[in-house]
Amino acid sequence: MPEDALERLKKALKTLPGVGPKSAERLCFHLLQNERQSAEELGKSLLFALENVRHCARCNNFTGEEECVLCKTQARDPSKLCVVETPVDLNRVEQSLAFDGFYYVLMGRLSPLDGVSSKDLNLSRLLARVLDGAVKEVILAMNFTNEGELTAYYLQNLFKEKGIAVTRIARGVPVGGELEFVDPGTLAQAIRDRRLY
Amino acid sequence: MPEDALERLKKALKTLPGVGPKSAERLCFHLLQNERQSAEELGKSLLFALENVRHCARCNNFTGEEECVLCKTQARDPSKLCVVETPVDLNRVEQSLAFDGFYYVLMGRLSPLDGVSSKDLNLSRLLARVLDGAVKEVILAMNFTNEGELTAYYLQNLFKEKGIAVTRIARGVPVGGELEFVDPGTLAQAIRDRRLY
Repeated sequence: MPEDALERLKKALKTLPGVGPKSAERLCFHLLQNERQSAEELGKSLLFALENVRHCARCNNFTGEEECVLCKTQARDPSKLCVVETPVDLNRVEQSLAFDGFYYVLMGRLSPLDGVSSKDLNLSRLLARVLDGAVKEVILAMNFTNEGELTAYYLQNLFKEKGIAVTRIARGVPVGGELEFVDPGTLAQAIRDRRLY
Repeated sequence: MPEDALERLKKALKTLPGVGPKSAERLCFHLLQNERQSAEELGKSLLFALENVRHCARCNNFTGEEECVLCKTQARDPSKLCVVETPVDLNRVEQSLAFDGFYYVLMGRLSPLDGVSSKDLNLSRLLARVLDGAVKEVILAMNFTNEGELTAYYLQNLFKEKGIAVTRIARGVPVGGELEFVDPGTLAQAIRDRRLY
């Protein structure tokens, strides 16, 4: 029944994070009245991406090919592997220009409360990647949330058993940060992790 | 090139109101990794709605039929016509349970700054609807923004010329509102529009 096309669209929009019933109504009006072209492109690109995007065979990131562009690069250091939670995190690390090795994207993190266990993350793939012979150091760049820390702790156990060097990116006062406005936990960590000048 | 499927999706997501480059990245990951079913449904329902939703011949609201469900209702008072800016506003008025007449949805408002003139709103359709013989009173329920007020002013001029009674919904202190927290403009209006008790 076409009368339901609107209700169907509103319901679908409500599945977007942060979109409630009222925003869905507003979005629906906005898209159908003022942004028909954008709406069509959004619909098509969603379906196109679902069909064409898959996981890179090496780094597990999204890609349209068997291997992603980054993994095909020759000019990177194969002895370093940086493990991140999401593709967004990978982009952030890349933007820092401080890392020249390869990546592995977990596509999630361990979260017992949400029922995400080590099996859901398919860690055997990561382990196979780490043990492929070239990797000498695994850099854990999980978030410093409870779930990120749990995941990092789990992974370092896993890799240390296999004799791989494991490091964790540093916690501390952000660049440009003022002590006055830094939370006590971060400051405590910055003091504990102080380094020789 | 399928490698671009991700970029294309991100670009499309950025056209949503309130979604910038970072949110688009996060949304893209969220949809492709955790919400594939919702994403597919969203894509399909967007395209379905674009194809099947049109404007009601009587009230200009979105509908899948020639006339919308509300306009087909018999148990409403045909002498009253409430003019609103958007379908969302229509729903709000309906939820108030205070109006039993019919509606006309402008699908926008006059806004010289955005280049929206009376021609863009296709006001001749509204005028034809108002002059169809049954309508005795037009209730202007535009927003109390600059654009809404301008639109209301323009419309009341238009209708008064034709001898139609025009009313505007009341401004004043909201229900449950405390004078302490009401802005001076609203309070001034509430005093000016005071009514006999």
